[in-house]
Amino acid sequence: MRLAIVRLSNSSPTPPLQAHDQAMNKIQPRTLKGFRDFLPPAASSREWLISTAREVYRSFGFVPIDTPALEHLDILVGKGGAESDKQMYRFTDPGGREVGMRFDLTIPFARFASQHIGELGTPFKRYHSGTVWRGENTQRGRYREFMQCDFDTIGTTSLVADIETLQVIHDLILACGLDDFCVRVNNRKVLTGLFERLELVDSASAVLRALDKLDKVGPDKVAAEMVSAAGASETQAREVLSLALLEGTNGTVLEALGPLVNQSETGAAGLAELQSLLQGAAAAGLPEKRVRLDVSIARGLDYYTGTVFETILGELPGIGSICSGGRYDNLAELYTKQRLPGVGASLGVDRLLAALEELGRLDQRASCAPIFVPYFDADRRDSYLGLCAELRRAGLAVEFYPEAKKLGAQLKYADRRGFSLAVIVGVREWESGICSVKNLATGESDEVQLADLAQDLRHKTGQ
Amino acid sequence: MRLAIVRLSNSSPTPPLQAHDQAMNKIQPRTLKGFRDFLPPAASSREWLISTAREVYRSFGFVPIDTPALEHLDILVGKGGAESDKQMYRFTDPGGREVGMRFDLTIPFARFASQHIGELGTPFKRYHSGTVWRGENTQRGRYREFMQCDFDTIGTTSLVADIETLQVIHDLILACGLDDFCVRVNNRKVLTGLFERLELVDSASAVLRALDKLDKVGPDKVAAEMVSAAGASETQAREVLSLALLEGTNGTVLEALGPLVNQSETGAAGLAELQSLLQGAAAAGLPEKRVRLDVSIARGLDYYTGTVFETILGELPGIGSICSGGRYDNLAELYTKQRLPGVGASLGVDRLLAALEELGRLDQRASCAPIFVPYFDADRRDSYLGLCAELRRAGLAVEFYPEAKKLGAQLKYADRRGFSLAVIVGVREWESGICSVKNLATGESDEVQLADLAQDLRHKTGQ
Repeated sequence: MRLAIVRLSNSSPTPPLQAHDQAMNKIQPRTLKGFRDFLPPAASSREWLISTAREVYRSFGFVPIDTPALEHLDILVGKGGAESDKQMYRFTDPGGREVGMRFDLTIPFARFASQHIGELGTPFKRYHSGTVWRGENTQRGRYREFMQCDFDTIGTTSLVADIETLQVIHDLILACGLDDFCVRVNNRKVLTGLFERLELVDSASAVLRALDKLDKVGPDKVAAEMVSAAGASETQAREVLSLALLEGTNGTVLEALGPLVNQSETGAAGLAELQSLLQGAAAAGLPEKRVRLDVSIARGLDYYTGTVFETILGELPGIGSICSGGRYDNLAELYTKQRLPGVGASLGVDRLLAALEELGRLDQRASCAPIFVPYFDADRRDSYLGLCAELRRAGLAVEFYPEAKKLGAQLKYADRRGFSLAVIVGVREWESGICSVKNLATGESDEVQLADLAQDLRHKTGQ
Repeated sequence: MRLAIVRLSNSSPTPPLQAHDQAMNKIQPRTLKGFRDFLPPAASSREWLISTAREVYRSFGFVPIDTPALEHLDILVGKGGAESDKQMYRFTDPGGREVGMRFDLTIPFARFASQHIGELGTPFKRYHSGTVWRGENTQRGRYREFMQCDFDTIGTTSLVADIETLQVIHDLILACGLDDFCVRVNNRKVLTGLFERLELVDSASAVLRALDKLDKVGPDKVAAEMVSAAGASETQAREVLSLALLEGTNGTVLEALGPLVNQSETGAAGLAELQSLLQGAAAAGLPEKRVRLDVSIARGLDYYTGTVFETILGELPGIGSICSGGRYDNLAELYTKQRLPGVGASLGVDRLLAALEELGRLDQRASCAPIFVPYFDADRRDSYLGLCAELRRAGLAVEFYPEAKKLGAQLKYADRRGFSLAVIVGVREWESGICSVKNLATGESDEVQLADLAQDLRHKTGQ
């Protein structure tokens, strides 16, 4: 599977002068702007996060899918709006086809669902973690390649799926070791109900665009934009804001919403859904402090049609939502006549990792095998190999240093890599059958019989 | 993180006629030629394989890295030979840069290592699983997008790293549930030694190219090609073949090799390395039937300089090597003056999955949560939600059907999805506090107290 690499030099030994000449021809190793390498600590953390997420998704019956990185251009273009089109990596492939790299996992899922739903059946619950590409402006600290991790339930309009979506987010963030967070929920029908009452339906998009900035610019500027950009009257703008600014317990807010939206059939339906959603979430054991009704949440413009939500970390509200989504009427109408209503969310993998790092909740030590075995007695290579293999068969993760260097140099390496324990077996130890197990954090050492070593290490590493 | 999707229709209800009109404008959902979707069973199997591989890599102290899918074109072009260049997906990005999609994980690792080795230190042991792209001819049943999973130890010339590479492959294939396989090993220096003795050094590449076809075309055609394409004499060709065709136990072959290569210094060194490698592998507990010296293995042309190996499944030799690699003198000479010798291998993820499927060793049931809870009593939604949440908190994976349909339809769904157990709680059961746990494979049912349910299910699912 591995390609032969065409070497620049021939295979005869290279004299120093030639090596210098070659140095002049080196290609400068570098990544593209907006792209990045993951060194082991970052790659380990991301692996851990994604496998944690998978385990939670699976515990609710979600199953994985994958789709190609490249799609026919007509599948992708025009689906994410003008900005996505502009940011898309697109080209003509070697076979002359117009292709694009996926910029999210939603459009590929819509295409996938239209193609395979007959075979899959409904309801269908899938998760999908994958890389997406957007040629964004990198000045905002954004990357052009990043990972998403979506999960959706399609083929059902049941609120149970909405409630489960909240449960999944809740259990997932908790499984990441964070407990101070809040999923803010709303229902687009409640906003629609208000717009109907205020006769603002035609300017709904512009009003919502303004409302989405509430956290950033505050109520006065939002009201001003509603007037200037959406053509709302001062009174209409204030009414929208008074709804968006409702605060209190979920019960209080629900009660206050009634008179504001119940005149509209859509508004009343939205309110009933919200009530039922919150009741179901409570029944599933989600504490009220972590699921809060927030009428200012709108999430995008034209896509969501019912429940919407976003997830804010109590200790880091400024980084924005780490998991957002909502209910939609029809996932795949661009590709199929079959109606596929659903609800889902997208986990912001990189954003959550950045938050965990900032909060010091990433365990860097998890990035290597816990046990280090220095190669101490040069004549005993095979004894070390046998010992390490035995420890691995006992379920332990063990790194054996490949060269019989000085112990100090090897322990320095172990320290740099972050190992917890070193098993030191030298000439004397091989003869006596007793080795020394050194705790690399504290520097303390224990003497342990080689025969009992696996058990001792399992105990010490909690494996 | 989720984009608003620009919908084709407005948000008002769509009358049937308009739906028909819309249908005329649907975009045909399809994947690109040579690309494929992964439906849940295939995606689950791949996830399982990659996490199995990671666990084995980690148990030897390998750590993960990742690199971008896109690289500056000059990093990639000309590195994998003319065929790779032709097959590469390359284009001009929106910022006017010439870029290419990675076609393997070796070149990106070479670039990565040159950039970061100062920070990483040596020896450095990494694994990397990722997607690569090659615009290959799809007629041979090959895909243009596939996954690789490489692991390498760089910065050391110690044979310990070569031995460990064999151990990793061995433990990995075993962890996949296969025990009838063989890692075939050789050392390029042994072949070089023979070429020196036969004065064939200058035609080495062409001779090896011919030799690589031994399995496919047989010794006569290989000898003919050595003569016609490599300019070897009939006698030289027969001498090379007599070495390549050596058979017997590792000990017998080693012994027979001596007189053939020991006159050459390189040949003698290669033989000593092979001897030491096999001895170390035995010390690490690898059975001889799974590590066989095979002097016909050459693996590519110019890249490998010492140990080479490939892995063949006893039950499916025809699919070719599922894990191949070897030792090289210098990983990153194209990008840096620092010499980075190393040894590594690439796991053919898709090939191994295809083999496991053909051998019936993939557990399709692993693709969903084991426990299904039908939504039976429509008035008790919240009780079901509470019960399922409780079971999940007890560590069980549970899917709750989102709609209160007829039980038959729900069990049909469960059957199709491959659940093992259904927990049936209807009106009567909620009242009596006793539910029914149905084994979906056998059709048998047990009555279980709701209070004991978690424990009963843990027992039945072995969780």
